[in-house]
Amino acid sequence: MRDIAVFSGTAHPDLAAEICAHLDVPLHPVRVSRFANDCLEVQLQANCRERDVFLIQPLVPPVQEHLVELLLMIDAARGASAGRITVVLPHYAYARSDKKDAPRISIGGRLVADLLTSAGAHRVLAMTLHSPQVHGFFSVPVDHLHALRELAAHFKGYDLSNAVVVSPDLGNAKEAAAFARMLGTPVAAGAKQRFSDDRVQISTIIGDVADRDVIVLDDEIAKGSTVIELISHLRERQVRSIRLACTHGLFSSGALERLSAQDGVLEIVCTNTVPIPVEKRVPKLEVLSVAPALAEAMRRIHNGESVSALFG
Amino acid sequence: MRDIAVFSGTAHPDLAAEICAHLDVPLHPVRVSRFANDCLEVQLQANCRERDVFLIQPLVPPVQEHLVELLLMIDAARGASAGRITVVLPHYAYARSDKKDAPRISIGGRLVADLLTSAGAHRVLAMTLHSPQVHGFFSVPVDHLHALRELAAHFKGYDLSNAVVVSPDLGNAKEAAAFARMLGTPVAAGAKQRFSDDRVQISTIIGDVADRDVIVLDDEIAKGSTVIELISHLRERQVRSIRLACTHGLFSSGALERLSAQDGVLEIVCTNTVPIPVEKRVPKLEVLSVAPALAEAMRRIHNGESVSALFG
Amino acid sequence: MRDIAVFSGTAHPDLAAEICAHLDVPLHPVRVSRFANDCLEVQLQANCRERDVFLIQPLVPPVQEHLVELLLMIDAARGASAGRITVVLPHYAYARSDKKDAPRISIGGRLVADLLTSAGAHRVLAMTLHSPQVHGFFSVPVDHLHALRELAAHFKGYDLSNAVVVSPDLGNAKEAAAFARMLGTPVAAGAKQRFSDDRVQISTIIGDVADRDVIVLDDEIAKGSTVIELISHLRERQVRSIRLACTHGLFSSGALERLSAQDGVLEIVCTNTVPIPVEKRVPKLEVLSVAPALAEAMRRIHNGESVSALFG
Amino acid sequence: MRDIAVFSGTAHPDLAAEICAHLDVPLHPVRVSRFANDCLEVQLQANCRERDVFLIQPLVPPVQEHLVELLLMIDAARGASAGRITVVLPHYAYARSDKKDAPRISIGGRLVADLLTSAGAHRVLAMTLHSPQVHGFFSVPVDHLHALRELAAHFKGYDLSNAVVVSPDLGNAKEAAAFARMLGTPVAAGAKQRFSDDRVQISTIIGDVADRDVIVLDDEIAKGSTVIELISHLRERQVRSIRLACTHGLFSSGALERLSAQDGVLEIVCTNTVPIPVEKRVPKLEVLSVAPALAEAMRRIHNGESVSALFG
Amino acid sequence: MRDIAVFSGTAHPDLAAEICAHLDVPLHPVRVSRFANDCLEVQLQANCRERDVFLIQPLVPPVQEHLVELLLMIDAARGASAGRITVVLPHYAYARSDKKDAPRISIGGRLVADLLTSAGAHRVLAMTLHSPQVHGFFSVPVDHLHALRELAAHFKGYDLSNAVVVSPDLGNAKEAAAFARMLGTPVAAGAKQRFSDDRVQISTIIGDVADRDVIVLDDEIAKGSTVIELISHLRERQVRSIRLACTHGLFSSGALERLSAQDGVLEIVCTNTVPIPVEKRVPKLEVLSVAPALAEAMRRIHNGESVSALFG
Amino acid sequence: MRDIAVFSGTAHPDLAAEICAHLDVPLHPVRVSRFANDCLEVQLQANCRERDVFLIQPLVPPVQEHLVELLLMIDAARGASAGRITVVLPHYAYARSDKKDAPRISIGGRLVADLLTSAGAHRVLAMTLHSPQVHGFFSVPVDHLHALRELAAHFKGYDLSNAVVVSPDLGNAKEAAAFARMLGTPVAAGAKQRFSDDRVQISTIIGDVADRDVIVLDDEIAKGSTVIELISHLRERQVRSIRLACTHGLFSSGALERLSAQDGVLEIVCTNTVPIPVEKRVPKLEVLSVAPALAEAMRRIHNGESVSALFG
Repeated sequence: MRDIAVFSGTAHPDLAAEICAHLDVPLHPVRVSRFANDCLEVQLQANCRERDVFLIQPLVPPVQEHLVELLLMIDAARGASAGRITVVLPHYAYARSDKKDAPRISIGGRLVADLLTSAGAHRVLAMTLHSPQVHGFFSVPVDHLHALRELAAHFKGYDLSNAVVVSPDLGNAKEAAAFARMLGTPVAAGAKQRFSDDRVQISTIIGDVADRDVIVLDDEIAKGSTVIELISHLRERQVRSIRLACTHGLFSSGALERLSAQDGVLEIVCTNTVPIPVEKRVPKLEVLSVAPALAEAMRRIHNGESVSALFG
Repeated sequence: MRDIAVFSGTAHPDLAAEICAHLDVPLHPVRVSRFANDCLEVQLQANCRERDVFLIQPLVPPVQEHLVELLLMIDAARGASAGRITVVLPHYAYARSDKKDAPRISIGGRLVADLLTSAGAHRVLAMTLHSPQVHGFFSVPVDHLHALRELAAHFKGYDLSNAVVVSPDLGNAKEAAAFARMLGTPVAAGAKQRFSDDRVQISTIIGDVADRDVIVLDDEIAKGSTVIELISHLRERQVRSIRLACTHGLFSSGALERLSAQDGVLEIVCTNTVPIPVEKRVPKLEVLSVAPALAEAMRRIHNGESVSALFG
Repeated sequence: MRDIAVFSGTAHPDLAAEICAHLDVPLHPVRVSRFANDCLEVQLQANCRERDVFLIQPLVPPVQEHLVELLLMIDAARGASAGRITVVLPHYAYARSDKKDAPRISIGGRLVADLLTSAGAHRVLAMTLHSPQVHGFFSVPVDHLHALRELAAHFKGYDLSNAVVVSPDLGNAKEAAAFARMLGTPVAAGAKQRFSDDRVQISTIIGDVADRDVIVLDDEIAKGSTVIELISHLRERQVRSIRLACTHGLFSSGALERLSAQDGVLEIVCTNTVPIPVEKRVPKLEVLSVAPALAEAMRRIHNGESVSALFG
Repeated sequence: MRDIAVFSGTAHPDLAAEICAHLDVPLHPVRVSRFANDCLEVQLQANCRERDVFLIQPLVPPVQEHLVELLLMIDAARGASAGRITVVLPHYAYARSDKKDAPRISIGGRLVADLLTSAGAHRVLAMTLHSPQVHGFFSVPVDHLHALRELAAHFKGYDLSNAVVVSPDLGNAKEAAAFARMLGTPVAAGAKQRFSDDRVQISTIIGDVADRDVIVLDDEIAKGSTVIELISHLRERQVRSIRLACTHGLFSSGALERLSAQDGVLEIVCTNTVPIPVEKRVPKLEVLSVAPALAEAMRRIHNGESVSALFG
Repeated sequence: MRDIAVFSGTAHPDLAAEICAHLDVPLHPVRVSRFANDCLEVQLQANCRERDVFLIQPLVPPVQEHLVELLLMIDAARGASAGRITVVLPHYAYARSDKKDAPRISIGGRLVADLLTSAGAHRVLAMTLHSPQVHGFFSVPVDHLHALRELAAHFKGYDLSNAVVVSPDLGNAKEAAAFARMLGTPVAAGAKQRFSDDRVQISTIIGDVADRDVIVLDDEIAKGSTVIELISHLRERQVRSIRLACTHGLFSSGALERLSAQDGVLEIVCTNTVPIPVEKRVPKLEVLSVAPALAEAMRRIHNGESVSALFG
Repeated sequence: MRDIAVFSGTAHPDLAAEICAHLDVPLHPVRVSRFANDCLEVQLQANCRERDVFLIQPLVPPVQEHLVELLLMIDAARGASAGRITVVLPHYAYARSDKKDAPRISIGGRLVADLLTSAGAHRVLAMTLHSPQVHGFFSVPVDHLHALRELAAHFKGYDLSNAVVVSPDLGNAKEAAAFARMLGTPVAAGAKQRFSDDRVQISTIIGDVADRDVIVLDDEIAKGSTVIELISHLRERQVRSIRLACTHGLFSSGALERLSAQDGVLEIVCTNTVPIPVEKRVPKLEVLSVAPALAEAMRRIHNGESVSALFG
């Protein structure tokens, strides 16, 4: 079997290092240079020939920089005769751009999938894509992991007899229902109303939440505006407590502080698919690691063992 | 501008004829032969050279026959030097196969999209795809119409002051919410629970429906089992009346009779994206025509006018 | 070397089982489901990752069902990270559609070859393609076996001193001549005349057949009309006996009974590339097995040994 | 409608000029340079932008030079923003390489078809391809003309009451049968026997030829060895006269003189798909022009009129 | 003829506006949104259907942002059924990455060319590519303009009797020689020496420059380090005066001020392919406009007129 | 690991044999036939299945014959199920066609690269491409060796204290500068002037050469006209001696004798990338072998070892 060779771009070297520690393989260095005209050049610093190459790069901000860097890494690996190139995308930001809800826009999730393939990716390992259909945007095999298992393990440590899982949005309600089943709780969801082209508001909450311990579940939290809006609706309905859970904790524009400051919010739980600098962290924040899951999936991909058998 | 040339496969010639009547262009004949070894041969019976060719074929049962017939039509048009080939898919059955929810299955919605492109389709005109993400499965331009406009026009003829739109499934709740906004009503949804690998049941209804005039909305009704299950939950909650609405009325396995026989069901409304033989029709059934919408979209596609401007 | 993994679609499980017995490998199960809207879903029931996957599916009636099922199997294997996907096509029905003999038709044999590649097939193992040029329709490597060896072995058991091989059609005469050389007999052929667009008749037989033991050879017999027409010409010329031979015994529309009832027909010989239900079989029918040949070819493909060396 | 722009490579400028005269359009010049290292450079000497470009180049000897020259012309037209590129191939020499009759050879007819497409050809206009299946080797639309019409018109000028059409080979017998139907004569064919790997001989003639006026028909005559062998068989059977007919008169290695010197050969008829230098011509040679047919097809392709309607 | 529709990304709207003024067509607006997770969404604000769409976007800093924005614009135009998509690249920054001068790097100029095609670009209009071979990296037609004409027109306003054109680098010397021929002057070039992996220095100047009026020509000036090094060599050789000329004036890291402060530098001339903010401009800077040249090329591309005829 | 299988076309069997001797593997025979109509057929005479196939064929005159032969070899290897196909191109003649310096020509270097890929090449091993950018014309991995190492080793045997490396052309000056650095000498270059469309002349030499031992370096010498022109300029400047060096010694049209006869020329050094028949060789000619370098690169490619590590 061809040797494994793991490289990380600049997006999240800590996660890559943790994955490699689990795999007990070295994390090979990558040299990223920026020319005077702002173009990037990437050099993989270890032999790729016939190797089973894994490139770890979540598409976290600055997304465009990390995306182009990743495309250059893929192409470099291909030109260096890699035996197989697997792109490990712990966070695929463009997955949110999954439909054409306005005329003359791009479905970015499909476009970027095509760009990755065009650059030479043979397969993708992704985690908690914004919608399950995004899997179908890729023309190469995708192994799609979910962090629900890690999140559920965390919440099972609490008394859930009075809990309810709440999705901020009907569009994500199915995922929330699956999570609720894992925890053995009921489910509820916020319903949004569009007032004008650019103003959408949660108009109501469908399902019973009054006097409940609420676990809000979303795939990603960025600015957190929707969640804050949801929290105010929840408070109106006299919920007992609120915990926030998501896979991808982007927490842009001071979201962590704002969420943390909300009355009734006991905890904010996310995974480490997105790097969170120490200075942004707040006491209520709990970060779960997906490195073991990603490492095990990579091991199985490399060895030709079933991935679904483990995470199915 | 190149002339338009419209052909219909054997799936739904009535709809094609109605569209052509609206466009005031002839529906060109297609000869479909079946050889002794069961292979199909399709001959387009009018000159395609440099023409703006439209091939109308909803993927209705027998789906596989209609799909292969369509692929042969596309390839025949390409080989006959068609200037442009637009596939008109009033019903894209494989759109339901839009995610990989079990290991080692195909995402059929993506595969069939690729097959259509591989055969030579330059663009697609579709209606009410099962999920909006399916749009992104196509590598060619798609114009995606919705029948909500036609359905809303119908229901606006009723007193909606006490109405509520109910989605049988949280996965489709967003579409139901959009429909509710068009009608000015609240929205509710059934939540499903999976008991075992092959048994899924509606466990509850999220949102208030008691004493309401319910409009159940789904994109497609086939066997109708989910809807019947939903109706029994609705009756338990003492709804005032039930009307069923969907775009794609497949009504397989005697569904129309079973639904029609349900207590409290006043009406079953669908569109003519799927042919319904006269002998299957029941008095409570109301079929709305999407031919005007499809014809107008085809006219705009042919003339290079904005389609989104009309249906946006 | 990667392990072999053999799957069969629903077209001909008996042949697949026989092949696997020869190979001494398990035949992995495939789950084929049909949704209420008539779409198919196929699940390969064994791990495919990095495996050398063989998918056995002759395109026998219902051809369109079996074709789409096969495309879904290929795509499922690709999505499940199969190392290599070989499609085993004991009967490639669309090979008959190998030329454009009318305007605005598809060359189905090329289209379906492209669809198989588009779905993800890496190579094809075929048997007795309708014409040798069909090999060139595939953009992936094809191993093309012939059943003439099996048929010849059978007929060499007879006294051939007075025999002649007769092709029903000049288009297939070259194959018949090759078979005649294997048996050491002369060759003759029927010449057809086209009376109108849809009526073709054998007008004469070119070559001497009077008082001979005739072996009629064709690649496939479906309805058998041409053969029956040929038989009447042969009888007019006082042949001594008639035996019919073909690779692909489709025998549609009661062909077996009609052929068997013809005066002077002593035997009907075919191979098992097409399943023949027990209830259709007649006493004069002799079915030869191509399973050993297909199994040996698969073994060599898997092991990287020369296939031509064996069957050349 | 975009203007037409016709260019000819160096293979057969006379035919190109004759076609352009029929079309009443100029034949644009092409500069072909050969560098000191033997590489070719081709410059199209007229604006191609958005034009409907036709490139005329039969693949006649030296075939490799003409093929690469053609590929460079196609690529130059593409790079120069041609609106559409139609390759006019009056003789497609590699069509003879249409099957894999030995291990580890290329099916050249398919490979060259792919190369033409890879270089940028949008469509092909071909004449009398070696076998009708070669049409299916192209992934772009092909208009396939036959010269049988021109040949038949010529032979109808003779008394055909005692004539028979003879194919030198069973593989081409179907074409001969079609020609015989056009002339209202019977048909016969030579049957070949393979004695060893490299020695094939005509062993017999199937069908009656004694005392007949024979018209030998083949698609191409190159060295003429097979035809000379056939002639000796015909003489043994006391035929009354022999005329030779083919579409592609390559006549290599002194074939014209050798054929012309055969006893009983009254005439050698071919078309001008292949240039025949004046010094090679013999008195018995009659060259028919296909320029009117090619010009009319090009006119129809350019105008979007049905080609099959004319030549079907 | 289809209408023209011109859009500009955010990279250089002033140049786009100037081009549109020359073309006398409107510059259509583009809405660029940035989501909370840093993904971009681009909406073309005018109907693209069947239009001849031009997208103007030089790849200037921030290059990665502008590149992804451009890819989204191309894909949006394709999805909106643009008739043809021409990417106007006044500055193609990645052209500098045109060779593999270290192991395991990407040839970025080729990769980005492939990405543009993969996103849907049908053709490219570029200006002064770093090397002429970069043209060949594109698989779509490229119109490649040079700004030498504009630069030469400017310098012809001076007394050139004592002038010499100097290239900072032998690699660009051919371009300098062409420019010298346009001005009727001799040419010289700096020769570089590599001291270690990351330190390259001009070791000497090849050709006579002493007592001359020097015009330094480069395709792009970014940080200007090489030019400053060259100037010090020129001063050692007692040149009379120095003027700097380039097409792409990137002037990063205070380059303009540093160059302007060099003894003996009379003038810095560039074109407006790259935007130069007013606050960065220095009195010695002269910016020539390439808008008329780009506009004329676009007009000719749109009308199907020869571009080479004008700029050849 | 898959076995290696090396084949040579007819272009340079001696080099192939020398390479195989270094690799200690057999050189498998290839049968090349030419049909009567001048088409080529190539048969690889050893099993290719799953093998690591190397096809050695420099594109030397007759270039078109060798190119088509190579394309047929690649396709044959693909059709015969080769595991990987590496094209070894010791001389890639079409690399000189690397830019579009006239309207409506092909960039042959890119076109031929695409043809090789289209035929099935998985990777390329090239030597001293005309410009380093040509690497980027290939969409498959390229290992690009330089013969400068071999040439430098040869010249280091001389006293270089007074030597200068001279490039005939500024376009190649960078390569000459690199060579000069390897030898520790200064560098100079000829500057060309274009007088009319087809007449280019060296107008001057940039850099000091007077009284020096000149080593002229070019990548390829064909007719040698430029070199002869350069020599006359060198003599005018009273150089002490002249030695000529190049990688690709094509020496067409009696170049060797003409160069050898030039006053002051002491030696002509090239490598064996191009075959030089014994009868063309002159006493001043020294041919260095690149077989060891190519063999070592092939060994490393086969074993998955770094090629850059060796030749970097």
